[in-house]
Amino acid sequence: MKRAVVVLSGGMDSALAAAIAKEQGYEIFTLHLNYGQLTQKRELKAFYDISHHFNAAGRQVIDTGFFTQLGGSSLIGDGKIDMFDNLPDDIGERGKNDIPKTYVPFRNGFIISLAAAWGELIDVQTIFIGVVEEDSSGYPDCRKEFYKYLSPALAAGTANGITVSTPLLEMSKKQIVQQGELLKLPFELTWSCYTREDIPCGTCESCLLRARGFNEAGIKDPLLENK
Amino acid sequence: MKRAVVVLSGGMDSALAAAIAKEQGYEIFTLHLNYGQLTQKRELKAFYDISHHFNAAGRQVIDTGFFTQLGGSSLIGDGKIDMFDNLPDDIGERGKNDIPKTYVPFRNGFIISLAAAWGELIDVQTIFIGVVEEDSSGYPDCRKEFYKYLSPALAAGTANGITVSTPLLEMSKKQIVQQGELLKLPFELTWSCYTREDIPCGTCESCLLRARGFNEAGIKDPLLENK
Repeated sequence: MKRAVVVLSGGMDSALAAAIAKEQGYEIFTLHLNYGQLTQKRELKAFYDISHHFNAAGRQVIDTGFFTQLGGSSLIGDGKIDMFDNLPDDIGERGKNDIPKTYVPFRNGFIISLAAAWGELIDVQTIFIGVVEEDSSGYPDCRKEFYKYLSPALAAGTANGITVSTPLLEMSKKQIVQQGELLKLPFELTWSCYTREDIPCGTCESCLLRARGFNEAGIKDPLLENK
Repeated sequence: MKRAVVVLSGGMDSALAAAIAKEQGYEIFTLHLNYGQLTQKRELKAFYDISHHFNAAGRQVIDTGFFTQLGGSSLIGDGKIDMFDNLPDDIGERGKNDIPKTYVPFRNGFIISLAAAWGELIDVQTIFIGVVEEDSSGYPDCRKEFYKYLSPALAAGTANGITVSTPLLEMSKKQIVQQGELLKLPFELTWSCYTREDIPCGTCESCLLRARGFNEAGIKDPLLENK
């Protein structure tokens, strides 16, 4: 059976990536990062719920103090180096180079390197990551050009020639909701909000992107049904 | 002034990469990884000594339990998953796919992702890494093909278009010693041995590669002068 590591933050994009990997016949191994993000506990719950839903053959949760040590993102508490003039209440604002202050430096590159290391050990063919370029926050490590080169780089740099699969790269949020609906994605298990862990705040950039997707697809977000 | 992150393990290859970055006019920021390797303390001392010697403008030491958590290398203590049938005394042996058992899965990809994250925050142009393909242990993440794609990947995937510089990639160990001699590299501050922290064991693959370099270059290794 084909095997894949799925990078799973707990949001709906990465959950859809897991659904697509299953749809394509992969046995999936889910990987999650605790890096000091504000909603770490809630995301971890979403990770376990979604991993369970998709019957993941293995799970790996990596705790890293690295991004806290570096600082530089408004998603994380104690930045020592301040690239984007981050403030506690600046979720959604733009910083240097028009990059959102929520940007965590090269987080996707970092987590893919973890996925590749684990993937070598458990001998997977592919890493699935639910990055979105077109309709995203504009993070540099979500750019199409990055993955165009990263996949052959990993194929050359790993013992078993692992490639990177980015099935959502060119999707809009609307298409993600539609595709999720089609694959019976359990949206109620996912978590997107950057700031709250009880109910979605509804105003951070991640909540807004999610809401736009559901609105444009004409589907109700089950997370908001009791609001 | 141009800025570079130099990945600095404390061995002579990475020390030469630092010397070359300085020679090329870069202000250097040195990055080191504590990942549970057997000679962690001695390598850290070498890192500080070499950083000081080259007047590094900044240093970053990253502690990660990730590779210990994954396991799979004879360089690390408590492997949970055993890819290469590692044993405590198998330094230098070959495992699966003819890859040495000392191989730490995708370590170079991992540390370059850290260098890229830090490099975005402190706004460097380049990451220097002293990988060697030709005359190395045969680790997949030292292959030329890997770096051919990784550099454009990083240029696309980082806010400031960071590239990867691998000045030692096609050098032999002999050439590394010769080039080091030319640039007055303080070989006495470097540490290569995989197994001992007091004096080099002389028998691990890293000691053997180092000894071959010095022998072929006709130069005495200052680390061995008192033996």
